[in-house]
Amino acid sequence: MSENISVLGLGLMGAALAESLLAAGHRVTVWNRTPSKADPLVAKGATVAATPAEAVEAGELVIVCVLDYPAVRQVLEGASLTGRVIVNLTSGRPSEAGAMASWVAEHGADYLDGGIMAVPQMIAKPGALILYSASQTAFDRYERTLAVMAEARFVGTDPGMAALLDLAMLTGMYGQIAGCLEAAALVTSAKYPLKQFTASLLVPWLNAMAALQVHWAEAIEAGDHATQVSNLEVNRAGMETLVAAFREQGVKPDLLLPLKAVIDRRTARGLGHEGLSGLVEEL
Amino acid sequence: MSENISVLGLGLMGAALAESLLAAGHRVTVWNRTPSKADPLVAKGATVAATPAEAVEAGELVIVCVLDYPAVRQVLEGASLTGRVIVNLTSGRPSEAGAMASWVAEHGADYLDGGIMAVPQMIAKPGALILYSASQTAFDRYERTLAVMAEARFVGTDPGMAALLDLAMLTGMYGQIAGCLEAAALVTSAKYPLKQFTASLLVPWLNAMAALQVHWAEAIEAGDHATQVSNLEVNRAGMETLVAAFREQGVKPDLLLPLKAVIDRRTARGLGHEGLSGLVEEL
Ligand SMILES: NC(=O)c1ccc[n+]([C@@H]2O[C@H](COP(=O)([O-])OP(=O)(O)OC[C@H]3O[C@@H](n4cnc5c(N)ncnc54)[C@H](OP(=O)(O)O)[C@@H]3O)[C@@H](O)[C@H]2O)c1
Ligand SMILES: NC(=O)c1ccc[n+]([C@@H]2O[C@H](COP(=O)([O-])OP(=O)(O)OC[C@H]3O[C@@H](n4cnc5c(N)ncnc54)[C@H](OP(=O)(O)O)[C@@H]3O)[C@@H](O)[C@H]2O)c1
Repeated sequence: MSENISVLGLGLMGAALAESLLAAGHRVTVWNRTPSKADPLVAKGATVAATPAEAVEAGELVIVCVLDYPAVRQVLEGASLTGRVIVNLTSGRPSEAGAMASWVAEHGADYLDGGIMAVPQMIAKPGALILYSASQTAFDRYERTLAVMAEARFVGTDPGMAALLDLAMLTGMYGQIAGCLEAAALVTSAKYPLKQFTASLLVPWLNAMAALQVHWAEAIEAGDHATQVSNLEVNRAGMETLVAAFREQGVKPDLLLPLKAVIDRRTARGLGHEGLSGLVEEL
Repeated sequence: MSENISVLGLGLMGAALAESLLAAGHRVTVWNRTPSKADPLVAKGATVAATPAEAVEAGELVIVCVLDYPAVRQVLEGASLTGRVIVNLTSGRPSEAGAMASWVAEHGADYLDGGIMAVPQMIAKPGALILYSASQTAFDRYERTLAVMAEARFVGTDPGMAALLDLAMLTGMYGQIAGCLEAAALVTSAKYPLKQFTASLLVPWLNAMAALQVHWAEAIEAGDHATQVSNLEVNRAGMETLVAAFREQGVKPDLLLPLKAVIDRRTARGLGHEGLSGLVEEL
């Protein structure tokens, strides 16, 4: 079924989203602060709106993807939102999503907040995922349309939940990146071929270790940090070895030091028999 | 072909190694400082030696797996090593492996240093891996025997290389763990079901992101940190959002702060257009 959809914000991400909706045969109206960014989309069949208000007027489903939440507010401020479904795919904090949901509701529209787990190149391709929260009604109504852009997953009616889980996924990724950067520095210091190490040793190992996180999640949910595998005392000794080896190789272990500190602290409190999952209680 | 193999050190790991060799039909002689730990292995067909010297005498291939390198030295000190192949699977630093390789060579034996990437429960099962370095001759001669315990991978004649790559893999793992702990704390603060988040969102995402590390390795090897995906400036802003969201949720982002600091530092030096791979140069 072909829908009337508007896309406001045609940066790298907004343009990719609009393009995927056009390709799926929807009637797409676009608006961007810098108008020239609409040209390639108009060439593919989009209608250009002169103002945000005109764009909101044209679509039952209104997708907004701009820099940040203050920009979303500026864009939507003058428009008449009544009866519309606003889908905000701009990244931000859970508290910003909550405030936006209230503001949109006050203006008579239904609201979905989204967190995009993909780069623009991945939109409409397998592996791309968008988390949605806030209005279950809006999600159920437009789920198939939203799925054109990326796998669509509804994570709850708390408006901030998509933003929170998006940030939690980025958090896990940043930790992984920090570990990989330190590993790369160590391997490079020993002149071992880094690509070979990464492809044949590090990545398979990280995938195997990531799978264990499901067990840790159970331990954290149960508040039971007993372990059959490796306790904090063993990890404390391992970290000492690691840091000493980094120093001998002339590499800074800075990105690992706060984890070491929290292991040391919890072990010193007499919890050395517990597993690493217990460290979550220190955060 | 059945070999005469000795295993010195029957802690959790040494016992698992000895058991796998017995199960493969080798003639296994065992020794442990606390003798009673040999009993279950004797019941499975192992011969017990009264001293380390007697154990070394009985095996052409001598596997040592004790607490640390000082303990390895204590165990081997009085034995006659001439003509033996010593395989040291005790964890340690590259410098310790180098010193041990020299000491063993002075005593007329061939040396392999190993890093075990498995827990005892995984020994002789798919997924277990042991890295070896030092004597290529010894590895080639015993590769099939060693493969009984775990996949055997030779990583170079530098004696410290197995220890170094072992530590580098642990480094990557500790980073990933730190990220998952922070993610778990954030998700828990919002009362979202943690196991569901971990199994259905976090783990697949981390596996997808780990795959990108192979491209980063290429970038680091080439010293070319240009990016098509997300530059340091974008990540700097993302980190600000992340830390602000942690604070709003009442969760400490401590494990991520050094990565944030290094992103800030490099961006401030005018390298905000580069990708994250360039951060390796700050370590
Ligand atoms: N790119 C990614 O990989 C990615 C991934 C996940 C999520 N996201 C999120 O998607 C959103 C957009 O990202 P992007 O990659 O498209 O960024 P971008 O290429 O830098 O585009 C930014 C967009 O925001 C508009 N904008 C900025 N300030 C504005 C204001 N005050 N009023 C009106 N419009 C304003 C820009 O308009 P002008 O063209 O006039 O400057 C442009 O359309 C961000 O929240 C980002 O975090 C991006
Ligand atoms: N367990 C794992 O998951 C794992 C994974 C990878 C690598 N490793 C490495 O494997 C090695 C052994 O670990 P494990 O798990 O078997 O540890 P463990 O269960 O604590 O056993 C330690 C072993 O070392 C012996 N030992 C300690 N000090 C000694 C000394 N001064 N002289 C002689 N023997 C001494 C102990 O003898 P007693 O029985 O007399 O105390 C025991 O056999 C360590 O280097 C560890 O890092 C272990």
